[in-house]
Formats: sequence, structure tokens, C-alpha cells
Amino acid sequence: MVILGIDPGYGIVGYGVIETDGYTYQVLDYGAITTSKEDSIAVRLQEIEENLIFLLDKFKPDVVAIEELFYFKNQTTIIPVAEARGVIVLTAQKYCGKLFEYTPLQIKQALTGNGRAEKAQVQYMVKSILGLNSIPKPDDAADALAVAICHSQTSSVLNNNFM
Amino acid sequence: MVILGIDPGYGIVGYGVIETDGYTYQVLDYGAITTSKEDSIAVRLQEIEENLIFLLDKFKPDVVAIEELFYFKNQTTIIPVAEARGVIVLTAQKYCGKLFEYTPLQIKQALTGNGRAEKAQVQYMVKSILGLNSIPKPDDAADALAVAICHSQTSSVLNNNFM
Repeated sequence: MVILGIDPGYGIVGYGVIETDGYTYQVLDYGAITTSKEDSIAVRLQEIEENLIFLLDKFKPDVVAIEELFYFKNQTTIIPVAEARGVIVLTAQKYCGKLFEYTPLQIKQALTGNGRAEKAQVQYMVKSILGLNSIPKPDDAADALAVAICHSQTSSVLNNNFM
Repeated sequence: MVILGIDPGYGIVGYGVIETDGYTYQVLDYGAITTSKEDSIAVRLQEIEENLIFLLDKFKPDVVAIEELFYFKNQTTIIPVAEARGVIVLTAQKYCGKLFEYTPLQIKQALTGNGRAEKAQVQYMVKSILGLNSIPKPDDAADALAVAICHSQTSSVLNNNFM
């Protein structure tokens, strides 16, 4: 199963693509879609859509896993972040059709066994589970790989429909 | 000039299409795109996109005018409303290319001369300016017509680029 994990944002959208049978993992790609402050939000949303279509077309993931937003965590930027997430959800729906979302607590729980684990501990587990030599950069890519791993570890347990 | 005004939402998206030379107004259409609570947010976003493409294709507006969001006004639903707004902005950008946004204060000011006017006063002015027999329903459609009128009345004064 190929999973595309997404850490939503409008300046930086983290992504991570893994292939897994539920026991072993192979990293196919990870990185970040970035957009420029110089551009309008409309242009930035279009860039996010175009880059995401490219990834969905290249890797043809079986599912897309995306982190859930909470407004108390991101009050100042919640509106543009949620606008970008709407574009990401729409694009994943149109070009993949299977979406799952996970809360930060679910992701931390799946990777470390502790829903309140520190960010560094989650990043260490991403590196360890995927057999990488170093923690993936930027942080947004590591977060995206974490949500992809979270899906692989919980999808066998939960039959978790998207929203 | 044909203006498509949008009042963003995910359960109800108000829209209003007007044609104006800056002095006289003709209402071409108004109404609401509605989505079902039974569906996932992904499916609802796709329905909003499809219906909006239909309107953009039918009326070929010169510009799209859309209301700005403020999180203090809509805290409990701000995330899905902003997700839907992201889809609306993306779609308007792709199929029209000219977007303008206005705050509730700007809209009230343009229609009534008072940025703190009551909703009923704004709705009365929509009916009056457009020469309608009654206030357009639902409220979301009246709000969408208001943002379209706001654009027609301020675009000659401001050269207001989108965001």
C-alpha cells in the first residue's frame, strides 16, 4: 500500500510518500511544497493544487492521510491554513478518493505510544521506523511522514472513514 | 461588468450575479449552493467546486467578489468554513482570475454608509439598490448580492487587488 501523508499549510505543505505492507516500510519521497509571500493567497492555493496533483499523479497513492487542524493551536494563521487544507482535501478527493485524517494526539500515540510526546520524540521515531540515517527535513516533511506511518499502523485496527 | 458575489460557507454558499455599469443594476441570478450533513467534508467541498464551476461557466463574470472571514466571528465552524472558502478562492482563480475580497465592515459601509449597520438594513438596501420586490432569500444569497454591490461601488474608487 502506498500512502501519501500531508502536513497542511499555505506557506509550507509537508508531504511524505511511503510504501508499506504494515510491517516493513520504504520511503518513496518526502519534502515540502512551498509558496511565496509575494503572491496572493489565490495564486498560492493554485500552486499547492498543481504541486499536489503532480505528486498524486506520480505516486498514485492508495490513500491520502492528512493531519487535522485545531484552531486553538494556530489562531493567528488558522484561516489561510484551513483554506489551504480545503484545497488539499478537495484535490486528494478528486485524484485519489480515499482520505483519512488524524489528530496530533492520534499521530503521537501511534508513533511513540504517548499521545503527549514531544515533537523531537515523534521525529526520532519517524527516522527509526523508516530506517533513515537522519531526521527528515524540513519538520513539515517529518510531520507528513508521521501521519502516513500513523495511517499504516491504525488502518488495520480502525475502519476510519474520513470525517 | 458582470460580478459574481459569494458568501462563503460549507453547508450553504450564497451567490449573487449582477450586471452593472456602476449606476444601474440588473440581477442575473442569486441563490445558494447547499451540501448535505450526511456527506464527508471532502464530498461537500467537491460539490461546492462543481456548482461554482457551473455558475462561472454560465455567467462568465468579469470579477468574483467574496466576503472575508474573521475567526472571532465564527469560532466553532471557522475551520470547515475556511476550508470551503479555500476551494471557492481556488476555483474563482482558475475559472475567472479576478478576485476581490471585502470585510463585513466594508460591505456595510458601501451599502448603507455605516460600517456597523444592522443586517436587516443591509438586506433592505440590497432590495432597494437592485429594484427587487422583496428581500432575496436565503440570507446567504442576500449577503452574496451585497458583496457584489460593494465591489461595484468601491472598485471605481479603490484599485483593490485581491489580498
